[in-house]
Amino acid sequence: MANSIECVPNISSADAAVVEAAAAQVRAVPGVTLLNTSSDLSHNRSVITFVGDPVGVEEAAVRLAKAAAARIDLTRHRGEHPRMGAVDVVPFVPIREATMAECVALSRRAAQRIWQEAGIPVFLYEASASAPNRKNLADIRRGEFEGMFEKVLQPEWEPDFGGRTVHPTAGVVAVGARAPLIAFNINLSTPDVAIANRIARAVRESGGGLPCVKAIGIYLSERDAAQVSINMTDYTRTPLHRAVEAVRAEAAKYDVGIVGTEIVGLAPMRALIDSAAYYLNIAQFDPEEQVLEYRLDV
Amino acid sequence: MANSIECVPNISSADAAVVEAAAAQVRAVPGVTLLNTSSDLSHNRSVITFVGDPVGVEEAAVRLAKAAAARIDLTRHRGEHPRMGAVDVVPFVPIREATMAECVALSRRAAQRIWQEAGIPVFLYEASASAPNRKNLADIRRGEFEGMFEKVLQPEWEPDFGGRTVHPTAGVVAVGARAPLIAFNINLSTPDVAIANRIARAVRESGGGLPCVKAIGIYLSERDAAQVSINMTDYTRTPLHRAVEAVRAEAAKYDVGIVGTEIVGLAPMRALIDSAAYYLNIAQFDPEEQVLEYRLDV
Repeated sequence: MANSIECVPNISSADAAVVEAAAAQVRAVPGVTLLNTSSDLSHNRSVITFVGDPVGVEEAAVRLAKAAAARIDLTRHRGEHPRMGAVDVVPFVPIREATMAECVALSRRAAQRIWQEAGIPVFLYEASASAPNRKNLADIRRGEFEGMFEKVLQPEWEPDFGGRTVHPTAGVVAVGARAPLIAFNINLSTPDVAIANRIARAVRESGGGLPCVKAIGIYLSERDAAQVSINMTDYTRTPLHRAVEAVRAEAAKYDVGIVGTEIVGLAPMRALIDSAAYYLNIAQFDPEEQVLEYRLDV
Repeated sequence: MANSIECVPNISSADAAVVEAAAAQVRAVPGVTLLNTSSDLSHNRSVITFVGDPVGVEEAAVRLAKAAAARIDLTRHRGEHPRMGAVDVVPFVPIREATMAECVALSRRAAQRIWQEAGIPVFLYEASASAPNRKNLADIRRGEFEGMFEKVLQPEWEPDFGGRTVHPTAGVVAVGARAPLIAFNINLSTPDVAIANRIARAVRESGGGLPCVKAIGIYLSERDAAQVSINMTDYTRTPLHRAVEAVRAEAAKYDVGIVGTEIVGLAPMRALIDSAAYYLNIAQFDPEEQVLEYRLDV
């Protein structure tokens, strides 16, 4: 089960010292490999990616949550990306031989420990959700940190672990198992975040757009530019190129172009190969047959 | 040294029974894995890809040459792709831990055996070439099978193995070590092969075009369409997308478009990832850091 689980916590800070403290906790756990940290100043948020065996990944996730809670005060946090916790979300992703069921079990163990050891109430989400209205992270997070103190008092929003008391500076956290996701940002040639929001609403699944696409508009102050920030939750259903071309078409309505895109953290090679085949217009291309690397390891 | 050498013989037949006979020879050799066969009816040619350890790959290449010589009669061969032998070219490619020098040594052993055991004279080419004018396959092959009987009589064109007697039905063969190559065809919206030839001349290195690009125009009778048939000899110097966009721009001069492309046989994933990053306009993308598969195996 070596490297069979990927964990991709998002913490609500882009401060290098905070990210390093969190990353150091991950590095210190045997059986775990830190793969990547990505910080965005406008989002005031960082994505930390690591892989390992189930026992190591659980330990690293709990230690990282403690480190984030000790260093991030959400009462002082400003950032363009919505957030409800110092450690905002902790997804566990099955890769290689691991199953989703194993990741659900792992997420429940980690959730309990994050409450017990870091004192942060936990909502289970996605494949680990305890109710249908808790599957979608955006629904759990609505109201953000500032609204969470009231939200948890509602009958349907008691956290799964920790009761109805929000951590005063670290908020709450969503923990769960999910399929691989690509965090994909598309930067626009306008600073007008209202346009980015209209594009996001048009292309995302919840607005009747592309399946398995979540999108919000964000203003990037350090660039004075608007961004459509996307989570691609299943690139086999909606590939990267379809999201880009849908955003390009919507943006054209406002005479706005795409100035560049970003992949935050890691992406599976197949998502990129599929987009290459699309743009290069390769006919009858079978990656599992024709990409050398697929063939050398079987 | 398992799977450290790739061998990609091209044989002058697209007949399924002939290809299967050649493939069966490869499959029968211990330490060798057949990865792919690709046949093109208009080219009347097939590309066979296998990997293995040096001893196994040498044995498989010799057996395949014998099988091809026994079944392909070039006096009756018609096809759009230039050819000089029943087995036209046998390249050995270092992958993983193998070196080019090891592939050169291997190619010389295989060349001697192909002459001794199959009776086919051999020109060493690319990294194995015995003279500068023999590095380029197109220079060796000029005149094709029909012209080879005269060509080998010229002082500078005596084969490296086998003397000046061309095999009466199997011709001659080029054997050598080379870097990985992508066989990449671009199909045009015109049947006019003269246009494909003009585009090929404009984009290929020998015509002052893109570095590490070889290209010829070919008429595909079964589609009634013209094709620019390309060998990309170093995709890190000229990537796939640059070749496609160069062909697109040249074709536009004739009011011709690209209807599709083909990758013949196998391609390294990095070539496709680089093109995805280009077309998706991904900024600051580091595949070795951000593509999951690169990170799991180190």
